[in-house]
Amino acid sequence: MNKKGLAILMRTKMRPLSPAATNKFNQMQIDPQEGSNEASFTPKNASINTQREFEQVREFMHSAISMNKTEILDAALSDFSEGYFSLSEENRRKLLLTLAREYDFDRVQVRELMKQYLGLELPSGEKDQDSGHVEELSLSAFYRIERNLRHALKPNYEVLFERLNTHPGGLKFLSTIRADILSFLAEENFASLRALDSYLKEKLSTWLSPANLELHKITWDDPASLLEKIVAYEAVHPISSLLDLKRRLGIGRRCFGYLHPAIPGEPLIFIEVALMKNVAETIQEVLWDEPPVPECEATCALFYSISSTQPGLSGINLGKFLIKRVIDVVKKDMLNISTFATLSPIPGYKQWLLSKFASAARSDSTFRENLLKPEEEKALLDASLEFNFGKSGMEVMHYLLTSSNYEWTKSAKLISVLRTPLMRLCARYLLLEKKRGKALDSVANFHLQNGAMIGRLNWMADRSEKGLVQSGGIMVNYIYRVENIEENAQSYYSKGHIQASSEVSCFLEDYEKAMD
Amino acid sequence: MNKKGLAILMRTKMRPLSPAATNKFNQMQIDPQEGSNEASFTPKNASINTQREFEQVREFMHSAISMNKTEILDAALSDFSEGYFSLSEENRRKLLLTLAREYDFDRVQVRELMKQYLGLELPSGEKDQDSGHVEELSLSAFYRIERNLRHALKPNYEVLFERLNTHPGGLKFLSTIRADILSFLAEENFASLRALDSYLKEKLSTWLSPANLELHKITWDDPASLLEKIVAYEAVHPISSLLDLKRRLGIGRRCFGYLHPAIPGEPLIFIEVALMKNVAETIQEVLWDEPPVPECEATCALFYSISSTQPGLSGINLGKFLIKRVIDVVKKDMLNISTFATLSPIPGYKQWLLSKFASAARSDSTFRENLLKPEEEKALLDASLEFNFGKSGMEVMHYLLTSSNYEWTKSAKLISVLRTPLMRLCARYLLLEKKRGKALDSVANFHLQNGAMIGRLNWMADRSEKGLVQSGGIMVNYIYRVENIEENAQSYYSKGHIQASSEVSCFLEDYEKAMD
Repeated sequence: MNKKGLAILMRTKMRPLSPAATNKFNQMQIDPQEGSNEASFTPKNASINTQREFEQVREFMHSAISMNKTEILDAALSDFSEGYFSLSEENRRKLLLTLAREYDFDRVQVRELMKQYLGLELPSGEKDQDSGHVEELSLSAFYRIERNLRHALKPNYEVLFERLNTHPGGLKFLSTIRADILSFLAEENFASLRALDSYLKEKLSTWLSPANLELHKITWDDPASLLEKIVAYEAVHPISSLLDLKRRLGIGRRCFGYLHPAIPGEPLIFIEVALMKNVAETIQEVLWDEPPVPECEATCALFYSISSTQPGLSGINLGKFLIKRVIDVVKKDMLNISTFATLSPIPGYKQWLLSKFASAARSDSTFRENLLKPEEEKALLDASLEFNFGKSGMEVMHYLLTSSNYEWTKSAKLISVLRTPLMRLCARYLLLEKKRGKALDSVANFHLQNGAMIGRLNWMADRSEKGLVQSGGIMVNYIYRVENIEENAQSYYSKGHIQASSEVSCFLEDYEKAMD
Repeated sequence: MNKKGLAILMRTKMRPLSPAATNKFNQMQIDPQEGSNEASFTPKNASINTQREFEQVREFMHSAISMNKTEILDAALSDFSEGYFSLSEENRRKLLLTLAREYDFDRVQVRELMKQYLGLELPSGEKDQDSGHVEELSLSAFYRIERNLRHALKPNYEVLFERLNTHPGGLKFLSTIRADILSFLAEENFASLRALDSYLKEKLSTWLSPANLELHKITWDDPASLLEKIVAYEAVHPISSLLDLKRRLGIGRRCFGYLHPAIPGEPLIFIEVALMKNVAETIQEVLWDEPPVPECEATCALFYSISSTQPGLSGINLGKFLIKRVIDVVKKDMLNISTFATLSPIPGYKQWLLSKFASAARSDSTFRENLLKPEEEKALLDASLEFNFGKSGMEVMHYLLTSSNYEWTKSAKLISVLRTPLMRLCARYLLLEKKRGKALDSVANFHLQNGAMIGRLNWMADRSEKGLVQSGGIMVNYIYRVENIEENAQSYYSKGHIQASSEVSCFLEDYEKAMD
């Protein structure tokens, strides 16, 4: 799960217990014999109640999986989802582990089928079309066991997923379940829960394939209940006021979302676009500067925010398809637009940089990597002479970047001294720092896997606290060149190759020379 | 594939080669060196061209499966589907066999994984939750191989199906492909093609799950292009004229269809409903009698026709969900409607009866089963005295039922003599004749598996040629009692139990007594 997804997840609240459900559960929990002494609600009783609550929902879950009569099934599915939402976090974890472990498939049967299969002799000339008929005969035994095996390998919990998918509200509920699974897995790694997650993720990505999603242009004429979701889930540049929202949906701006018919009125993901004369260098230009350029003068569609509303869909890349669809729509709509770019945060940069400083400080001086070039080192120490921020350039930078209120942003001198090393190291972070062959930065990884290239680093592009905390205020433009999207995505996917403009690569040449 | 499905399939034409595609293919086929002698279009050249055409489309298919760049992929998918439609039936068969055989999965890899898996030791207390942690560790190896195995068991052609599903027009194309597969399988049973079919069928039923379908009330205000489909695909009671269609969509009538967003303007299946005072006894009342009763006086919703438009979806029961949805909608809409019933044909009755007569005629007289009761036998022979239709009751019946122009329907006496045995044997056919535990009659099987019961047999209910050919004019009312639907469906599914009214069972008691 990427950091952004996690950040969204942290903000979603568990759905509060509805009054109706509370009543229902209280009625079931209170033993008639104990009904009178309501005052004795001791922790022990609470724990008994919690246990009963768990057993109750577990029972609902069992019915939802094993029932065959659809009339009653609908009620069982509703009971289960209502019951689930009423459970404590601990009970949800227990329930999901129960689902993962006790509703798996029959391993004995699978082993039996495998033994049968391995007992069959592979037809020799499998690719030889001439001996078609003999082969067809001998293959039919294979086909039969293979088919049985595919079915035998399906866990029993698949039934629950399938049934919920066709139950009103079920798809959204499945996404909630997956969000819970992910948050439990972040705390502790259960193999069975991970298997459950990977199965559910695959199901969800089938059901949410772009063919089933509708691209919706979100405007001020949309229902408030939908717009409210945009405000709630905007994860990149929070919407400050109704006026702010209205501007983001007004002239010179676009907002598009993907809707699924089973989750009406709530885009799964949405993107905000600004139509501009040039690729913006600061978020200020996009969010606050007025008025927007006349749309007929715009040549660039700038994607300045993309947010997913469903933490349970983490790892299912809807953004890629959304961006491509939006590019298509905008291109058809506005012939004067020829550049498609983002203005993106670099959420992991400062954290990475500080950890680099820390590890340099810890290591032996002989092997210590000085991240700074001599002239940068000198400039930093000179600038801090009067304040004594630290004994080395890295210490000075560390001090400035972590000082409260970001005092350095108020001093033209400090800004200018920090600029060179911060920009250079940022290029290094984006272009060279990887994890399992992919860009370490989650937003970079997102756009690169979608086929974008790194276009330009922008200094002091986001002076908001969030911008300064994440990346010292630096933002980056990723460029989507329609003709290169697939090629870029492919070479990033297979070789981890990151496309960048010469302007950005320049920083790196400096770095490489310094390392020589 | 049931008979009805087959009947529809027989009527669908291969899409004719579009002029554009013809040009394209001609350009590719004509070798520049041979380009001048256009006159020499001999069978030999034709066969070479056919072979080239096949190779071309096979190449398209290969690209559509192996390409990774989505920009080009869209073109590859279009090329493939356009090319496919241009192929001769023989080439389509060859192509589908190629797909089934050469784009299967890697059996060597699957065997390797199985061997690894069988080498693992099953954790002993698999269901014991206390030893959770030890178990989690040992299970993770299982989960890993199981997951790999699930993927390894996916044939390579799945990629093509998945890609087509998200390609505009692809879902419909897949349904065409499946219709072709089914018609090839009806001619000859290829194990590989059958495996392909079963895989595609599963995919299609996932994609066409009722959650993805929209219930649409079809009215006279719908586009002509949609209504045209209703006329073309009405498989039960052909629509004779625009007036007929208009009446079926007018007062006292309803028509509902299931639409999929990826196949716009073309219901996958539709049902026609008449709102009536009583459950109709003849199709005449429904189709021709005027005027319909005022809707406020109706107490019965009669389903008089259900037709699927996609032979490629054969075996995927959308009808069941459609009927249930329609019952829900009508119930909510019209509180006075309390009975839901069909007036259905019995398409296999006469064919079954004639084959029974034939086998009786062939068998030795000692073992010969006389399908007729003594009084029926006598009445038939008496009635045919003057014409000498045959020497036994069964011969007389055979003669009458197969005589051209159905002369018997013009004689009150013959009608009355035939009525008793035909009705009685019809009850036997519907209630007792089975194939693999299911009702032999395809329409009966359809409604019984949906949870209906057999309510009433209606004599001379359909005097159209089709009605007389199929069932000697008898029709049957299946009754949907909302409160029993699931129970009936379940007991039919698991035990082959057929629910019938006492009125219909009566015929059977007679039969059983006669057999004693």
